[in-house]
Amino acid sequence: MISVKDAFETILNHVTVLPYETCVLGKATSRTLRHPVSTDHDLPPYNRIMMDGIAARSEAFIGGDQVRLKIIGLQSAGSLRKELTNTFDCFEVATGAVLPLGADVVIPVEEISISENYATVSEAFKLTPGRYIHRKGSDRSKGEVLLPEGIRLGAKEIAVAASCGYNELKVAACPSVAIISTGDELVDIDKVPMPHQIRRSNSHSLAAALLSSGLGIPNLSHFVDDASKVRDGLLHVLQTAQIITLCGGVSKGRLDHLPRALEAVGVIKHFHWVAQRPGKPFLFGTGPSGQPVFALPGNPLSALTCFHRYVIPALEKMAGRKHKLIMKLPLQEPYSFKPQLTNFLPIEINNGVLGSEVKPHPAGNSGDFAGILNTDGFIELPAEGTDYRKGLTLPFWPWL
Amino acid sequence: MISVKDAFETILNHVTVLPYETCVLGKATSRTLRHPVSTDHDLPPYNRIMMDGIAARSEAFIGGDQVRLKIIGLQSAGSLRKELTNTFDCFEVATGAVLPLGADVVIPVEEISISENYATVSEAFKLTPGRYIHRKGSDRSKGEVLLPEGIRLGAKEIAVAASCGYNELKVAACPSVAIISTGDELVDIDKVPMPHQIRRSNSHSLAAALLSSGLGIPNLSHFVDDASKVRDGLLHVLQTAQIITLCGGVSKGRLDHLPRALEAVGVIKHFHWVAQRPGKPFLFGTGPSGQPVFALPGNPLSALTCFHRYVIPALEKMAGRKHKLIMKLPLQEPYSFKPQLTNFLPIEINNGVLGSEVKPHPAGNSGDFAGILNTDGFIELPAEGTDYRKGLTLPFWPWL
Repeated sequence: MISVKDAFETILNHVTVLPYETCVLGKATSRTLRHPVSTDHDLPPYNRIMMDGIAARSEAFIGGDQVRLKIIGLQSAGSLRKELTNTFDCFEVATGAVLPLGADVVIPVEEISISENYATVSEAFKLTPGRYIHRKGSDRSKGEVLLPEGIRLGAKEIAVAASCGYNELKVAACPSVAIISTGDELVDIDKVPMPHQIRRSNSHSLAAALLSSGLGIPNLSHFVDDASKVRDGLLHVLQTAQIITLCGGVSKGRLDHLPRALEAVGVIKHFHWVAQRPGKPFLFGTGPSGQPVFALPGNPLSALTCFHRYVIPALEKMAGRKHKLIMKLPLQEPYSFKPQLTNFLPIEINNGVLGSEVKPHPAGNSGDFAGILNTDGFIELPAEGTDYRKGLTLPFWPWL
Repeated sequence: MISVKDAFETILNHVTVLPYETCVLGKATSRTLRHPVSTDHDLPPYNRIMMDGIAARSEAFIGGDQVRLKIIGLQSAGSLRKELTNTFDCFEVATGAVLPLGADVVIPVEEISISENYATVSEAFKLTPGRYIHRKGSDRSKGEVLLPEGIRLGAKEIAVAASCGYNELKVAACPSVAIISTGDELVDIDKVPMPHQIRRSNSHSLAAALLSSGLGIPNLSHFVDDASKVRDGLLHVLQTAQIITLCGGVSKGRLDHLPRALEAVGVIKHFHWVAQRPGKPFLFGTGPSGQPVFALPGNPLSALTCFHRYVIPALEKMAGRKHKLIMKLPLQEPYSFKPQLTNFLPIEINNGVLGSEVKPHPAGNSGDFAGILNTDGFIELPAEGTDYRKGLTLPFWPWL
């Protein structure tokens, strides 16, 4: 039996970064950027006015008397830069406008009174050179990389790409992920199950998690519990899918055909059985052309947990996405777990004295989805311990 | 100036729940469920075997001697229920199968040795009645509501809907959200800006946040800084959009036409100016047919922050979605903010001794997107304080 750490590393070592594709900016949200984005201009691109008010020459303030300035025009945002030459002239200016040539101070509208094209500056106003002027290039210089490759394109990254002139971006292609349920007790959603049957739900759950992650396109199918049909099905899917996820049939039962069938069709097994609960019978291999094959246990909670813990990070690596920090949150109450296994424990988040804390909701023996409906995700209790104190901070994986 | 709390309540009081639509299960991920989902069968629907092994009659163990049982067949998952009548007979059973009639104990494969159709039970095996049998109806009873309306459909909820036989679900319709940029200094992404211009980025940022939330479909447009054109544009958008978001032109400048234009076209103003930084000039109103109109400040960070803090929760309410707990995370270092304003402070999450802590990254004066690229979201510092101690837990809003 392999440890969670070794299982995870083995998987990451056997998956490679997939190709990119070009995508228009409006469709790039949540995808993975595959090239650096650099700015084609200084940030800001001009000396930018930061307040509505007037722009003047500081020499007007040298005398120390109350200052009265003649308004000779308006420098609005988006208008060509104007020029101020006389000491006691000024321009009315708008936030976002370029600082007029010759002007070096901005006085906010709250500090002036205007009558008949003259602005009188409040006596209380203290001149601070450069204040309310966002200097050209003070944030970033032309050519500087603003977005590195390998990041998720969220709202602020999309904005930066837009401001840098990228109408199109290279993003990670979204691979097809085969999601295959196994087990003769499973019937389709629209069927009324006989007393010994249940409806398929695992494959829909994994498909939903995949869609929610934005890292792949699910392609659902089903294998019946028949050794030769499982082999035929595997041979077909190995020719068509870039990533293969199977659910069930991977344990020690007489009808658990998968481990032998995978071997028969040339899938190299990298590990089978992981020191974890749930999900111990998890098997990972690679197909003849290197495709990762995740054979997850059929217990619903096991399948969903392994999908979050192993398959999603593998898909992130395949997308070229940089590792994302997992949050660590404190236990709301002590928890005990005796077996020397890593425990992926469903939890609910509550806000308490320590901030957001996690309350354990052990799933019981059934491991079905109804038992975890009120949970927000799972925490990872290391295999080494058995008693975990209140307040201990542990990695938190949110449900997708 | 209105407080953040009052502004937020005012908005929620003025938005109403929008209609639902029908959606196939495979497209329902991340959407908002609009009816309760109840189970049409007991959970589990039959006495379900939880381990690969054999099923037998407990009377075989009464004598206390080592037990040797004749295997009379296989009860596999998905096969019709068989019957066990003789005391010293047993069925081989698979996980997920129905418990044979007459059987009341399950012995895992690890506890038996099989030769010539006889299973010998390990002497160490301790009989515990009911162990490894997941009793019919022990989790949930037929007719019980498993999913309440108003929840987000994640992976586990999709699985439950599948197992309850819902091939289609009623979900919140995805409204069209008009996102309108203003300001003559803005040019399209594919243009090379003149020295006094910048490319449009706010509207792309808000569109990306909206897409990421899954709560609406963005519809982008632009208003030039001309009072009568702004009015015409507003009249048009009030006839076509269910929700209107504007960026910029809402402050005190001479070319800030929006407040007057909104009044002229019949938008009722519910508040203008909120005691917050960033985003003080935020205006909220409702159109002639009750459409919410969010007029956000044009400063990029202000617009994005207000969109997360006000517009997204309003869209959640319009989708019929139940309030989601905001996480609270501890400050990694003390922070000071003097003005009597609620401060939405960009932060980076780091894992430290308290678990996931937030490190302040004040955006400086510019408020552009480049300044917040390394942040994960913002925390909300209440208006009442000025000095916030290390370890203080504060509401955290992640960037979309």
